[in-house]
Amino acid sequence: MAEITVRTDGGEYRVHIGRGILERELADDIARLRPQRVVVVSHPSIYDLHGKRLYAALQDGMDDAAKVNEFLFPQGEDSKNLKTLEEGYGMLLACGITREDLVLAFGGGVVGDLAGFLAATYMRGMPYVQVPTTLMAMVDSAIGGKVGVDLPGAKNMVGAFHRPLAVYSDVSFLHTLPERELRSGLAEVAKYGFLYDSDLLATLESWEQGLPGETCDLAEMIAICAGHKARVVEADEHDLRGVRAMLNYGHTFGHALESACGYGRLRHGEAVAVGMIMAARLSELIGLCEEGLYDYHQRVLMPILGGGARDINAGRERIIFDMQADKKKGKGLRFVLLEGPQVPRLVEAVAMRTVEAAVEETLETLRRVDPCL
Amino acid sequence: MAEITVRTDGGEYRVHIGRGILERELADDIARLRPQRVVVVSHPSIYDLHGKRLYAALQDGMDDAAKVNEFLFPQGEDSKNLKTLEEGYGMLLACGITREDLVLAFGGGVVGDLAGFLAATYMRGMPYVQVPTTLMAMVDSAIGGKVGVDLPGAKNMVGAFHRPLAVYSDVSFLHTLPERELRSGLAEVAKYGFLYDSDLLATLESWEQGLPGETCDLAEMIAICAGHKARVVEADEHDLRGVRAMLNYGHTFGHALESACGYGRLRHGEAVAVGMIMAARLSELIGLCEEGLYDYHQRVLMPILGGGARDINAGRERIIFDMQADKKKGKGLRFVLLEGPQVPRLVEAVAMRTVEAAVEETLETLRRVDPCL
Repeated sequence: MAEITVRTDGGEYRVHIGRGILERELADDIARLRPQRVVVVSHPSIYDLHGKRLYAALQDGMDDAAKVNEFLFPQGEDSKNLKTLEEGYGMLLACGITREDLVLAFGGGVVGDLAGFLAATYMRGMPYVQVPTTLMAMVDSAIGGKVGVDLPGAKNMVGAFHRPLAVYSDVSFLHTLPERELRSGLAEVAKYGFLYDSDLLATLESWEQGLPGETCDLAEMIAICAGHKARVVEADEHDLRGVRAMLNYGHTFGHALESACGYGRLRHGEAVAVGMIMAARLSELIGLCEEGLYDYHQRVLMPILGGGARDINAGRERIIFDMQADKKKGKGLRFVLLEGPQVPRLVEAVAMRTVEAAVEETLETLRRVDPCL
Repeated sequence: MAEITVRTDGGEYRVHIGRGILERELADDIARLRPQRVVVVSHPSIYDLHGKRLYAALQDGMDDAAKVNEFLFPQGEDSKNLKTLEEGYGMLLACGITREDLVLAFGGGVVGDLAGFLAATYMRGMPYVQVPTTLMAMVDSAIGGKVGVDLPGAKNMVGAFHRPLAVYSDVSFLHTLPERELRSGLAEVAKYGFLYDSDLLATLESWEQGLPGETCDLAEMIAICAGHKARVVEADEHDLRGVRAMLNYGHTFGHALESACGYGRLRHGEAVAVGMIMAARLSELIGLCEEGLYDYHQRVLMPILGGGARDINAGRERIIFDMQADKKKGKGLRFVLLEGPQVPRLVEAVAMRTVEAAVEETLETLRRVDPCL
């Protein structure tokens, strides 16, 4: 059981990590808060698996007359849009939810982002808690208060910063997490490694086939990552000081990959993993770091990816095109690159030809390593 | 020319009030900010009247390559919904607007609320300024950062707190404001009077037929109201301490009236004016204040209303029904009442029969004073 506190100017909250967090920390907090209603935001597949357990933990702390309502929507990034949001508002309104009630996000990143934005904007803001069920959400998206939805073709374009009351990361949910989702989360773990923590990378490298063995307790690794995330959020909650921006390592390439392959085809973590390999090669090509960074990334990330890169169905040109399209949307083309492991730097001006080379070489390497690609 | 500063924990901003604010303060600030793009959010009728003047003032301060884009939507509360919001997001995205650009709300309360919420949530928040063109917006809604849209049947149910960079209240726009809109704004002025300021009420009472004479400079009155609003916002920006809640004087009745008559039939200020008369009578009926408050409200508000109450097409039962429906939506039935002029108090438990009596008596009085009703 680990506990991380996120302290920002606007307030502080705890991240609880371990086994049985639902029955212990969540149930205790609910008993203390005594909400009249809890709205669980989730998707049917996770709710079918674990809804009863969550419900029991909630009922433990709530008054007899208190109610649990559910807002369920289909799994996946496709649901993270204004339409689902509108349905959510309608449901909150129909149930008579007020600012004294509580929203509970129960799922992965999509559920957390959408539920958090619902809570951020319904009646100008109501409290919510995060109960992440994926590794990705536990190490990253559930912490830090970035919430929101996508616009067509533009991820996370509508959103807010809204601190959760607390985050409850119960690692027992990871047993039912599909392997591909687990690998996607491990790519985010590797990101923290390349940015801040060589020990994390050493651990990942020591695993066989990129997966933790049966004796491995992921809770400790999650707590380390949550700690990194908490420090970043504390230093730059609103993403204005260039600290939080470093967490976009691999994302300029990754977003273009996701878009070029069609959203939903690659997991976010898979796209970021490939994106980090491309970023490492780009760091080498522009002479920012010594040779070897690219190889190091491959050694760590290829086992984690497993066959995940096989779903890449777009070539260099399409990936570059989508990257440029992002630029036209006014975001500017900026890369988080590395001067070496754990020495990130934001780079704004890179010749497009060099970016193309980094993409092409990485795609070739992926094909060479995995002939199925 | 008056200047009010709103100082809150999160930051401060100025409210400029006077004639020629557009060409002076707004143009100066734009020249200082140098945004690459300004998105004017407005509706066609106000933009037809004053768009050229606004455009000229903006161009004065902007670089040659900088652009002004417009997002126009139909006038009225009917437009303040998620659909218009979605169109707005789409427009911002298509124009490549970023957090370095600027949203400018140019219109009344609906425009300000919607533009502010667009700015609050696009890319997790971008800067915006308020350029109110109605008396109502100048004295109330443009100040304080409450922004948002309606859900079907539930006003302001989705929203945020988002401070504008500044508010530019150019009173020259009031010359083209329809009389009914002017009267609606004066009802809000009277609200500040009943809550905080007997001098304001004396001024309103001294006018003939509830309208300012030709020699009257409204700027001073607007500055006084903006000052009251600023102090309230400073004391309780997020509406958590019971200070800002007082500004809902007349609103429990007023919202029910608006809803019962069908949104858009009564101006918001008209509904609030009638609502304040009802609240005054309720204050008398429960013995919170001495007799006379009801008469005082009629003396001040009936001339301001002009024939505005003639559009009331709902009786006591329907008004009470809609008030109860609001309660079911979880908002609870709370009234701001008066112990006497300038002594507001939040009252939660009132017998429904007494509320009904206050509504019925006020409707009867309105009918007696204005036989057209």
